[in-house]
Amino acid sequence: MIKVVIIGSGNVAYQMAKHCLANNQIELVAIAARNTSVLSSDFPKSNCVNIENIPLNADLYIIAIADNAIIDVSEVLKNASGLVVHTSGSTPMHTLKNNTKHGVLYPLQTLSKNKPIDFTTVPFCIEANTQQETDFLLNFAALFSKKVYKIDSEQRKKLHLSAVFVCNFVNHLYAIGADLCEQNKVPFEVLLPLITETAEKVQHISPKKAQTGPALRNDTNTINTHLEQLQSEMYKDIYQLITKSIQNGTEL
Amino acid sequence: MIKVVIIGSGNVAYQMAKHCLANNQIELVAIAARNTSVLSSDFPKSNCVNIENIPLNADLYIIAIADNAIIDVSEVLKNASGLVVHTSGSTPMHTLKNNTKHGVLYPLQTLSKNKPIDFTTVPFCIEANTQQETDFLLNFAALFSKKVYKIDSEQRKKLHLSAVFVCNFVNHLYAIGADLCEQNKVPFEVLLPLITETAEKVQHISPKKAQTGPALRNDTNTINTHLEQLQSEMYKDIYQLITKSIQNGTEL
Repeated sequence: MIKVVIIGSGNVAYQMAKHCLANNQIELVAIAARNTSVLSSDFPKSNCVNIENIPLNADLYIIAIADNAIIDVSEVLKNASGLVVHTSGSTPMHTLKNNTKHGVLYPLQTLSKNKPIDFTTVPFCIEANTQQETDFLLNFAALFSKKVYKIDSEQRKKLHLSAVFVCNFVNHLYAIGADLCEQNKVPFEVLLPLITETAEKVQHISPKKAQTGPALRNDTNTINTHLEQLQSEMYKDIYQLITKSIQNGTEL
Repeated sequence: MIKVVIIGSGNVAYQMAKHCLANNQIELVAIAARNTSVLSSDFPKSNCVNIENIPLNADLYIIAIADNAIIDVSEVLKNASGLVVHTSGSTPMHTLKNNTKHGVLYPLQTLSKNKPIDFTTVPFCIEANTQQETDFLLNFAALFSKKVYKIDSEQRKKLHLSAVFVCNFVNHLYAIGADLCEQNKVPFEVLLPLITETAEKVQHISPKKAQTGPALRNDTNTINTHLEQLQSEMYKDIYQLITKSIQNGTEL
């Protein structure tokens, strides 16, 4: 049994703790937060501890909290003998350098408490400061997922940046589509199958090959008609900039 | 049996013709193109005709060709007694006004020849110039799909515009993500589950509620780190503009 402590009360901490509780090769020794009251509705009281009372005999400490608070928890765990990791996409591993054994366990997925997650298809990006700890993390992540990648801090930063484009920014384009539908009394649900298919296509062919639309085929008539229809200056700017970027596509 | 002629040799014409051939309530009288040689590898020779030789006794003519050529085919069909429709998102219905019975049958999906399509989940937006033809199209579209919507030309224009945001522009953001991965020797496949989940989320909750990321939470540190990492001026511009638009989200 791998003894695990999870630190955090957000979406990642919640979902990872639930998975640990359900896995018979993992013993969730504790789940820790500054304020245990946010934990006790979701977890057995015996599991919930304050950050000051984290047991120091676990094999693995998973820090799943806001990026700027990681360093403080690292300090709290400086006498722990186990491996200390964080789950952040944009924080370098060396932030944990005061912990003898340290690393990163980054699940690259958008998680929320109210939606159950099937971890088997969630990519886990791992990194550790020694080969032994790397091997340990590879095995541990395999208890969650079939997709485990060794990714160093520099690569992880770039993945996190790419994730902003393909997740946060993409979602904002969905929001613009929804807004245009609402303004014009068209049900947004008409667009949902197109959204699904657009995401599905790039699972099999490269996005560059999957590109279609008026920008790619230089259809100036359609582009101008679209721009005339857009009332928001912001939407016009986005339309023009992405159209230009698609047309510059040779640099991709 | 509904007698149908399809005019066109592109992706939409191809997929709709295949569906007509497979449906026992539809008789595909002919598939027509300027040059039948592009059709004959995909369809029985007896079905393929030149545009000048389109039989004029069909119940329904589906014009599935480039927007700017629709008017010419409408002219060729001016003596046809059946209903003449086009499949274009951005062309008004009145482009077909010289055909006594006319309308629109717009499948809102990205179609390609080399990928089989399940039409049952493809939204069909229909419109016609009389109630009788509207009813006919509603029934006909129901032979393809469970999702049939009555949408007028003005609404369809807006749907087409929204589709550019949620499909073409979204795909370009995927392409940028793929490019950043390639530049940094990270496999793009690591991002695929996130792409799927981001599209899946908005099937159930509004995109506005699904929004996450550094822009939304005003995380200036992360935003600046991301901007520093972007070498392409175009990517920087896109990052800044969409970040600003997310932060202006109150107008959504």
